[in-house]
Amino acid sequence: MQGMMMQMPLRVIEILDYAAAAHPGGEIVSVRTEGDLHRQSYRDTYARVAQLAHGLKDLGVGEGDRVATLAWNGYRHFELYYAVSGMGAVCHTINPRLSAEQMLYIIKHAGDRVLCLDLTFVPLVEALADHLPEGLVLVVMTDRSHMPDSDMGFLCYEDLLDEQATTFDWPLMDENAAAALCYTSGTTGNPKGALYSHRSTVLHAMFIAITLPKSLREGGRILPVVPMFHVNSWGLPYAAPMVGASLIMPGPKLDGPSLFELMESEGVTASWGVPTVWLGLRAEVEKRGTVPSKLDQLVIGGSAAPRAMIEFFEDRGLDVCHAWGMTEMSPVGTHGQLSEPMKDLPHDTRMRLKSKQGRRVFGVELKLNDEDGNRLPHDGKAVGELYVRGNAIISGYFDNAEATSQAFDREGWFGTGDVASIDGAGFLHIQDRSKDLIKSGGEWISSIDLENIAMAHPKVANCAVIAIKHPKWEERPLLVVVPKDDGPRLEEIHAMMQEHVAKWQLPDAMEFVEDLPLTATGKVSKMTLRKCFEGYELPDAG
Amino acid sequence: MQGMMMQMPLRVIEILDYAAAAHPGGEIVSVRTEGDLHRQSYRDTYARVAQLAHGLKDLGVGEGDRVATLAWNGYRHFELYYAVSGMGAVCHTINPRLSAEQMLYIIKHAGDRVLCLDLTFVPLVEALADHLPEGLVLVVMTDRSHMPDSDMGFLCYEDLLDEQATTFDWPLMDENAAAALCYTSGTTGNPKGALYSHRSTVLHAMFIAITLPKSLREGGRILPVVPMFHVNSWGLPYAAPMVGASLIMPGPKLDGPSLFELMESEGVTASWGVPTVWLGLRAEVEKRGTVPSKLDQLVIGGSAAPRAMIEFFEDRGLDVCHAWGMTEMSPVGTHGQLSEPMKDLPHDTRMRLKSKQGRRVFGVELKLNDEDGNRLPHDGKAVGELYVRGNAIISGYFDNAEATSQAFDREGWFGTGDVASIDGAGFLHIQDRSKDLIKSGGEWISSIDLENIAMAHPKVANCAVIAIKHPKWEERPLLVVVPKDDGPRLEEIHAMMQEHVAKWQLPDAMEFVEDLPLTATGKVSKMTLRKCFEGYELPDAG
Ligand SMILES: Nc1ncnc2c1ncn2[C@@H]1O[C@H](COP(=O)(O)OP(=O)(O)OP(=O)(O)O)[C@@H](O)[C@H]1O
Ligand SMILES: Nc1ncnc2c1ncn2[C@@H]1O[C@H](COP(=O)(O)OP(=O)(O)OP(=O)(O)O)[C@@H](O)[C@H]1O
Ligand SMILES: [Mg+2]
Ligand SMILES: [Mg+2]
Repeated sequence: MQGMMMQMPLRVIEILDYAAAAHPGGEIVSVRTEGDLHRQSYRDTYARVAQLAHGLKDLGVGEGDRVATLAWNGYRHFELYYAVSGMGAVCHTINPRLSAEQMLYIIKHAGDRVLCLDLTFVPLVEALADHLPEGLVLVVMTDRSHMPDSDMGFLCYEDLLDEQATTFDWPLMDENAAAALCYTSGTTGNPKGALYSHRSTVLHAMFIAITLPKSLREGGRILPVVPMFHVNSWGLPYAAPMVGASLIMPGPKLDGPSLFELMESEGVTASWGVPTVWLGLRAEVEKRGTVPSKLDQLVIGGSAAPRAMIEFFEDRGLDVCHAWGMTEMSPVGTHGQLSEPMKDLPHDTRMRLKSKQGRRVFGVELKLNDEDGNRLPHDGKAVGELYVRGNAIISGYFDNAEATSQAFDREGWFGTGDVASIDGAGFLHIQDRSKDLIKSGGEWISSIDLENIAMAHPKVANCAVIAIKHPKWEERPLLVVVPKDDGPRLEEIHAMMQEHVAKWQLPDAMEFVEDLPLTATGKVSKMTLRKCFEGYELPDAG
Repeated sequence: MQGMMMQMPLRVIEILDYAAAAHPGGEIVSVRTEGDLHRQSYRDTYARVAQLAHGLKDLGVGEGDRVATLAWNGYRHFELYYAVSGMGAVCHTINPRLSAEQMLYIIKHAGDRVLCLDLTFVPLVEALADHLPEGLVLVVMTDRSHMPDSDMGFLCYEDLLDEQATTFDWPLMDENAAAALCYTSGTTGNPKGALYSHRSTVLHAMFIAITLPKSLREGGRILPVVPMFHVNSWGLPYAAPMVGASLIMPGPKLDGPSLFELMESEGVTASWGVPTVWLGLRAEVEKRGTVPSKLDQLVIGGSAAPRAMIEFFEDRGLDVCHAWGMTEMSPVGTHGQLSEPMKDLPHDTRMRLKSKQGRRVFGVELKLNDEDGNRLPHDGKAVGELYVRGNAIISGYFDNAEATSQAFDREGWFGTGDVASIDGAGFLHIQDRSKDLIKSGGEWISSIDLENIAMAHPKVANCAVIAIKHPKWEERPLLVVVPKDDGPRLEEIHAMMQEHVAKWQLPDAMEFVEDLPLTATGKVSKMTLRKCFEGYELPDAG
């Protein structure tokens, strides 16, 4: 028997339509590429979004067309999110830190018709000029007075909006229509496209709003350090206006001192980002001897947050929430909020729980498979590949049958490529990406576990553990360290590790480097690091 | 272009599956009809829900079958919600305060196969015995030791669960499948059935969780005074476990002293109910000179909350949220939470805003139509019939083509039967039900507005304004008062009213009564009241 209820399509534009009326205090504060600070209420933003939609329509953008962005976090980027999806087109966010080759690959693969770029990226696009697809319309996200001197035929963003009507007759499209397109970080190979629908986007926003109310609350002021070109800033541009939180957009200024200052001056209450950016904030906090005064919650995800980092911020009164997710998951899969009764646990137990990748958010299901595709128990011991299911998870990669064919198990769950355990209370513990696990004498070593421990050494600024080929053991771990001061000694690290892991898992050697290679989204690129150390000879391998 | 995302059916059982794991601190505390207080975690509840589903399956309950309940707010009622919907059947909640005739009408109209009843209602069902449909299975919601002595062939609820498995393979039904059935209050005629789907129920829970976080938050302890037989306790049995709030179930004890005591002993933080129940709590608060110590928010809806009531509780530190909704809307349509910037407004302005019916919740759209079905502006002045649209609103009445045919406008919006204005900030102001408006000399008088003012008189315990036939003016207002002490004088009331309404709108007469007739859901029944005063002669009507 069917229910007798209206079926209104869930639509991205509904969120802003609601926020404009329901949250008169909500605003977007943006550090602009033009150099100044800009503020705009959700109400005014909604009017501009309508103008932008008219402007894009005048350019010939129609239903299903891809409109790409190459931009920092800012109000114009936010406007593009809503105008493009709202009118039935698809907002394709491009990561500007990709290589030229990868970027061109993505632009062509997506079939972009329009590309909107921040001033910062004018030189970048000029350099690609000869290789861009014929007819790609280029729009610079600035006003007339800041337009660059260029023979690229750039259009001016503010001109598109000028004199347009401030309302738009938003179509009632199918809720499963595509709304946004984002490619994976390319940590393990060429980026693959996730094509989000209106339904998945609205549901994901509700899922995280319900799960993370400490960040996502009316009156909250959230600084998304995670870029809008990295899985839609983890959903914040949708969830924040929905609940009435303001967005404090850092633009291109992501260094520790800039972030600290912006947090302080704008009374930021929560901030979300990958571990590498928190290294910068951490240094600034150490220098100043204090955390930003209103800051309440840090959400850390995208790669493993080391326990030392979590404790650093927790010791200074912040609530650190270690989250795990994937581009393919919209992206949030788990969160590190402790539930009420866990808040009374001893400090050490809480920090241990918080170092894990957290528990599933509402709307996401997790399971562990063994190699034959059978389910493993959630007992904190069994380790297997992590599979996921839910409304905010891809059912395939955009125009990529090969990747799609490898991504799902026989029950239709999506394979994350992560190897993990899940304990009885539901806490996920990611051991490694399956491609980063170190296979030694038929056993596996978790690079993440070793890094986590080494990071606690006061003379380690950053580190990574990778596999080195070994004639006898197949692979052995090498610890690569960015030293602080004169750096640690390997014996010191071994001593720390021995308390937590078996002796045969200790890294065979340590090397110092000035910097770790990062992927376009600020993760340590172990693929690159492995290449750097190709042919490396371990001390006892002779 | 379609998105490429998984489409998992939104399902009611998912909520409890999530709560059982995510919210180990969440519990249901119930005042039992057996006389004691009972507590049970969401985790244990989930296991019992599986047992109940097995038990119902053994009784032959299959997909789409209706399982009716006749019960107070309590954990077994909660278990029925989830077990019945979870297994693909339909949970039909019956209001035990309906007349025998209406109740039989509903049971037959719904086609109920099983009826589960609290001990309280054994005599009621015994009295109906001869008229109940053949084959209706009767289950008393108690354990073996409390089973009544009866020749009705009652089954025992706890026997159904006994020795059953504590997990159940919940079907992945279509999200639009029916999950629950509830009939309207019957204020204006025979009750009509709203048939909720899994999708509408889950979305509604998310909508209110996002809009009302002060009540719906982890660690919150919510006392639903609004019965589970009245539009699913306004969605609380779904939204509370979703966010990790506990439910404090008052069972049959809804008088002021009992509510106060339970709120105090259980540390209740929020409570939801219709205005009439708050009259009782108000008296108790006056007697004790204090509000329950942890209580933070009262949500008042179902009929207009008088300003005097709102101010009474606000003055004592509570946040009063005046909400409006309908059975046909799952039910919450609007809420009276003020947004951040409004919190700095002068007291009087805030109270005036809070006396209105509030602003739309996320997921609900409102519009006003004039008599020709054209839209009226939202300017706080134009008054018209209120129409609504959204995922939690019915698309028709269950098996009632006639009522359905009258309920929607040409754009497919649902007509509420309420006459209202909406101001520029989105605040709804319900003038009246269209059936209760008083037509005087071609102009309309709002009975709600007059009641609202009279309620502020210290000698008015409760009141209602109804239309009396008038030879010259067609209809004129009569004020019916339940007096406190010796009651007010009409001139005093007139003096108060003259500050707010035109002279020709003042009630022509006042009558004292001992009690106002209430509908089954505790609303003043103006239909009955009009009948009581049929033929009443107004002083100047001669
Ligand atoms: N908290 C975390 N702890 C450990 N790993 C994490 C965490 N959060 C995310 N990750 C890793 O990031 C992955 C998802 O990242 P993302 O979608 O940005 O692309 P990517 O996997 O880095 O790139 P590609 O899929 O193109 O190789 C996860 O599969 C997991 O390996
Ligand atoms: N805050 C409120 N202020 C004024 N009226 C309200 C409020 N909340 C609800 N109502 C009234 O209650 C109605 C919805 O009530 P419900 O669905 O319980 O059934 P009913 O309308 O009383 O009964 P029936 O439809 O069978 O006549 C609304 O249409 C409105 O008239
Ligand atoms: Mg990946
Ligand atoms: Mg009604």
